[in-house]
Amino acid sequence: MVRVGIVGATGYTALELIRILLRHPEVEIVALSTRQEDAPHVSDVHPSLYGRLDLRCENLSPEQMAERCELAFSALPHAASMSAVPQLLAGGCRVVDFSADYRLREPGVYEQWYNHVHTDPTRLGSTVYGLPELFGDKISAADLIANPGCYPTTAILGLAPLLCEGLIEPTGIVVDAKSGVSGAGRSPKLTTLYCEANESVAPYSVGTHRHTPEIDQVLSDASGRDVEVIFTPHLMPMDRGLLCTMYPRLIESASEAQLLDVMRRFYADKPFIRVVEHMPSTKATSGTNFCDMTVRIARGQLIVVSCLDNLVKGASGAAVQNFNLMYGFDETTALLP
Amino acid sequence: MVRVGIVGATGYTALELIRILLRHPEVEIVALSTRQEDAPHVSDVHPSLYGRLDLRCENLSPEQMAERCELAFSALPHAASMSAVPQLLAGGCRVVDFSADYRLREPGVYEQWYNHVHTDPTRLGSTVYGLPELFGDKISAADLIANPGCYPTTAILGLAPLLCEGLIEPTGIVVDAKSGVSGAGRSPKLTTLYCEANESVAPYSVGTHRHTPEIDQVLSDASGRDVEVIFTPHLMPMDRGLLCTMYPRLIESASEAQLLDVMRRFYADKPFIRVVEHMPSTKATSGTNFCDMTVRIARGQLIVVSCLDNLVKGASGAAVQNFNLMYGFDETTALLP
Amino acid sequence: MVRVGIVGATGYTALELIRILLRHPEVEIVALSTRQEDAPHVSDVHPSLYGRLDLRCENLSPEQMAERCELAFSALPHAASMSAVPQLLAGGCRVVDFSADYRLREPGVYEQWYNHVHTDPTRLGSTVYGLPELFGDKISAADLIANPGCYPTTAILGLAPLLCEGLIEPTGIVVDAKSGVSGAGRSPKLTTLYCEANESVAPYSVGTHRHTPEIDQVLSDASGRDVEVIFTPHLMPMDRGLLCTMYPRLIESASEAQLLDVMRRFYADKPFIRVVEHMPSTKATSGTNFCDMTVRIARGQLIVVSCLDNLVKGASGAAVQNFNLMYGFDETTALLP
Amino acid sequence: MVRVGIVGATGYTALELIRILLRHPEVEIVALSTRQEDAPHVSDVHPSLYGRLDLRCENLSPEQMAERCELAFSALPHAASMSAVPQLLAGGCRVVDFSADYRLREPGVYEQWYNHVHTDPTRLGSTVYGLPELFGDKISAADLIANPGCYPTTAILGLAPLLCEGLIEPTGIVVDAKSGVSGAGRSPKLTTLYCEANESVAPYSVGTHRHTPEIDQVLSDASGRDVEVIFTPHLMPMDRGLLCTMYPRLIESASEAQLLDVMRRFYADKPFIRVVEHMPSTKATSGTNFCDMTVRIARGQLIVVSCLDNLVKGASGAAVQNFNLMYGFDETTALLP
Repeated sequence: MVRVGIVGATGYTALELIRILLRHPEVEIVALSTRQEDAPHVSDVHPSLYGRLDLRCENLSPEQMAERCELAFSALPHAASMSAVPQLLAGGCRVVDFSADYRLREPGVYEQWYNHVHTDPTRLGSTVYGLPELFGDKISAADLIANPGCYPTTAILGLAPLLCEGLIEPTGIVVDAKSGVSGAGRSPKLTTLYCEANESVAPYSVGTHRHTPEIDQVLSDASGRDVEVIFTPHLMPMDRGLLCTMYPRLIESASEAQLLDVMRRFYADKPFIRVVEHMPSTKATSGTNFCDMTVRIARGQLIVVSCLDNLVKGASGAAVQNFNLMYGFDETTALLP
Repeated sequence: MVRVGIVGATGYTALELIRILLRHPEVEIVALSTRQEDAPHVSDVHPSLYGRLDLRCENLSPEQMAERCELAFSALPHAASMSAVPQLLAGGCRVVDFSADYRLREPGVYEQWYNHVHTDPTRLGSTVYGLPELFGDKISAADLIANPGCYPTTAILGLAPLLCEGLIEPTGIVVDAKSGVSGAGRSPKLTTLYCEANESVAPYSVGTHRHTPEIDQVLSDASGRDVEVIFTPHLMPMDRGLLCTMYPRLIESASEAQLLDVMRRFYADKPFIRVVEHMPSTKATSGTNFCDMTVRIARGQLIVVSCLDNLVKGASGAAVQNFNLMYGFDETTALLP
Repeated sequence: MVRVGIVGATGYTALELIRILLRHPEVEIVALSTRQEDAPHVSDVHPSLYGRLDLRCENLSPEQMAERCELAFSALPHAASMSAVPQLLAGGCRVVDFSADYRLREPGVYEQWYNHVHTDPTRLGSTVYGLPELFGDKISAADLIANPGCYPTTAILGLAPLLCEGLIEPTGIVVDAKSGVSGAGRSPKLTTLYCEANESVAPYSVGTHRHTPEIDQVLSDASGRDVEVIFTPHLMPMDRGLLCTMYPRLIESASEAQLLDVMRRFYADKPFIRVVEHMPSTKATSGTNFCDMTVRIARGQLIVVSCLDNLVKGASGAAVQNFNLMYGFDETTALLP
Repeated sequence: MVRVGIVGATGYTALELIRILLRHPEVEIVALSTRQEDAPHVSDVHPSLYGRLDLRCENLSPEQMAERCELAFSALPHAASMSAVPQLLAGGCRVVDFSADYRLREPGVYEQWYNHVHTDPTRLGSTVYGLPELFGDKISAADLIANPGCYPTTAILGLAPLLCEGLIEPTGIVVDAKSGVSGAGRSPKLTTLYCEANESVAPYSVGTHRHTPEIDQVLSDASGRDVEVIFTPHLMPMDRGLLCTMYPRLIESASEAQLLDVMRRFYADKPFIRVVEHMPSTKATSGTNFCDMTVRIARGQLIVVSCLDNLVKGASGAAVQNFNLMYGFDETTALLP
């Protein structure tokens, strides 16, 4: 049994993570932390966990957390994470970090997009980006995993096969992304109120969304080209689900069947990628760790569609997948379905 | 043209009020107030009003508001309202008050349910409760109208005919109420986040909801009996709409047809009451000032169903209906559809 | 491994059942039937199952189904079920039947509410009603289980402890029920279209809903009294979730704590009942086999709130719970979470 | 007063049309037709109209309709419409046709996309496309108006200024469109069931949607270039609202301010176009006849966002706008808000 803790246990990704870990036969959740002072019981914070987990969310320091557990899932916001992670590691605790703090390689790029000076720059260049379908061989030995963002996961998984095979132009790729509201977190704010988000669709952060450099960097790393995407996220009136409709330019003409075949071969042994011929929908991935994808060609334009559950494969399911690889468990443990 | 102002212009009821007033041929909106300091343009606060109303939401004192307009719609929260209303009135401004501050008759009851000492107790006993279907004759001459709560409007309109005719027991009336989320206002809080309210239904404030004494009092006033309801509000995953399913005890046996007939006669000349034989739904009243109602008898138990749009007939439509009566306009001006 | 089949595999309960059975270590799904002629692959019918189950939905006769499997979950509509079940049993197949055909005891009551003559009346009186919390001891030996309706499960579980302890009046119990749309099935019809159900709440089938006699009968059986409920179902704009707000009359005064204590003792060893002090919500039970419940007393009126996921504890989770008891597996196998 | 009729009165666009016409001071609705035989009262079909319109939906022939009214709004499906329209016109009735039957100019193109031989080909080339912002001068004299599709209206309005000014490449324009479910009509089918559409987003009819040639043709006509779009519609979990995110290539570099200025001048006197600087949302146009639009430039890529209410500006509001122009009424009559 691996003793794990969750730093920042009050949000939606933490809840989803707990749900998954509760069915993991090799995991014991031993500590939950929050910055709240009153140490609420986890079932007061997440009523769905009533009777399932008897722990309080305590205001634990990273040192205290590291004493209690072997691995910490850190679900802190960016900037907060890079304060806690070094101390967790120093305490001997392996870390899967949900924040963006260790995803980018260049401190300057981090600073430009996140408006914070990075206080742990030496780890940036060496942290493993926890997308098992691309970097699975590096994950098992890592002590710190940067768990990918939900938008990047969806976009990268859909585009990587075609970029790595040199079938599409690496720049100017339109990524029109649609996300459920849970991706915006559980802190009350106007834009995520029910009556603002319901019965509405709108783009946001066009040209400025912080997942942009993450998509560029990871696809560039994977393909050896300088990838640049045009990323347009939209908020959808639904709890969970994330779908990217992407419009890369084919370098040479190809058929849908050929491209699907490239995808299938690229992900031949990957248990959570489903290359399908029908049109995917977020609903068909809801609650699962699957990423469904397909292609269409219309008037010579390639259209790649990729989707997943932003709280599972886009966050907590991916984290457990990384955890499984780090500890040598079967990659799918606790993740099917 | 009546020059009107809106105090507390940033919420959902204020937006709905502006929408309605913009189609009122005898109204000019001349002032909008907010407690925010930066005086945002109303279309920055409510983007749907872009190009429709060229006003800023200013941090106006009640005195300033009273100088600019003949009538103010006050959409302040309770407790804040009883500070502003006396000054508005003193400034010569008539007021339709959306808060609960002037709805109850007894300062002690107010204090008990709202946990505030009432600072304007003398007006409590004399303020007209602005439910035109019951108190229409008192509204025209009033300078201050207490605009009813959304739950009380729905429950009272459904029960009043049967109580006034002495057909049902006045106590122990179960009022099982279902409301859309907009009734909870536009201030960000956890319970009204999209991902909390969506895909969920739950009761709240059972036995403690502040609309309880309002329903009791108004129905008691109207019927001359001591009415006491068992009021159970529920939050529904929808923007707007409020439906009450009510279970009064018949004093003597009666048929559905007889009871519908009582309702129809009671509301014979009321333009916004629709006594129907089919089962009402909130959707059929959405965006309208109608209150739809019917009855069923099952196993001897009377079931009264009443519903409306909480932002229109439950708030801003009712306010304009009151306004129309106060100024001698046709009651339906700007309210059909 | 128990070889199981699903009769009527194209609906929402069948999909949920397959999802649960796929994580059951002792089950092999060997046959799926449908009345469609073209034998679609199950992943064409339910895209979320792509890559998870490689079976076609075939137009199998009950005899064919009985040859292939040891137990059949029958998710046929009422009336169709009582044709198939006798043949399944005759073929040596145990059956968990989702329809209403074997839930009532009296053929006359069945005929009155379902407008069909019962063609298998002799089994009516002897079929076990598959609510493990009440009738667990009879389930293990049964060859035919009548899987309860979603409304009855919710209402019965909330009321049974208080009725069996003689704490509440058995008649005139108002059961105000709110259900997500999936309870209405997957056959296209006007009332369950997105644009009809969304942004609306309304009662339906008031006084005539077919779950009424089922609630009465089971609570009467359990408590030894003649129970009669006033049952008012409402359609809610959400996929899944069912909540009953119930208003029984206390025979003698009691406190909330006393009543919660009665409930807790009644369900002391029942793994899927959560008697809570906070107010339950359907969301906290979503995707789980839990039934959450609590009580409140307001103005002397007892209010019992009970809720669950209509597709899990209200249908397919309950079916697997029954299956586990029938085969001697741990009751919670595949059902936590 | 103009006597108008509605052919095909049972759908969502017909309901929205009736709602708008009921506030039109110069309109009398005199006839409603349906292919149903039992002549239901309009308030049985559309309960929200209870007490608002006392007409039955009759199975009227086009001749009968033409006898009763001066103008007919025809909301029949395509193919059905081209049977009825010639007879309505022959009977002396002007027609605003909601179907696609008279929108395209070439019978061959119609046949290719709609799989029907066009039975009224001579009118195709000469029918006025009822988009007042582009073809307002031709509308007043027309007897037959082809009311535009909801997707084409949104896409065309956003792109026309930039195409007509020669600022963007006419081909390869990605139109990523998101629509509420009401666009799919009121006939029960699997894909528009609540539990299929809710909590899901997915593309559909990629490369094959019938609005594609309509967008191409109208933009080509307006700009004098051969326009070709890559059109990808998506179904969104909401009742109404349609948003297009479009990615044309700029021919020469331009700033957002310059492009917004082009749009503003192009629509200088158009009352229903709102060129905004903030990011538009469908919610801000809900229930209105406005089309909101803006532009962004990200990494050199132009992004045009355009949105509206598919039932109003995308259908019935546009129809009334056309009607107003046909009869010389102010263009905004009954349409603000």
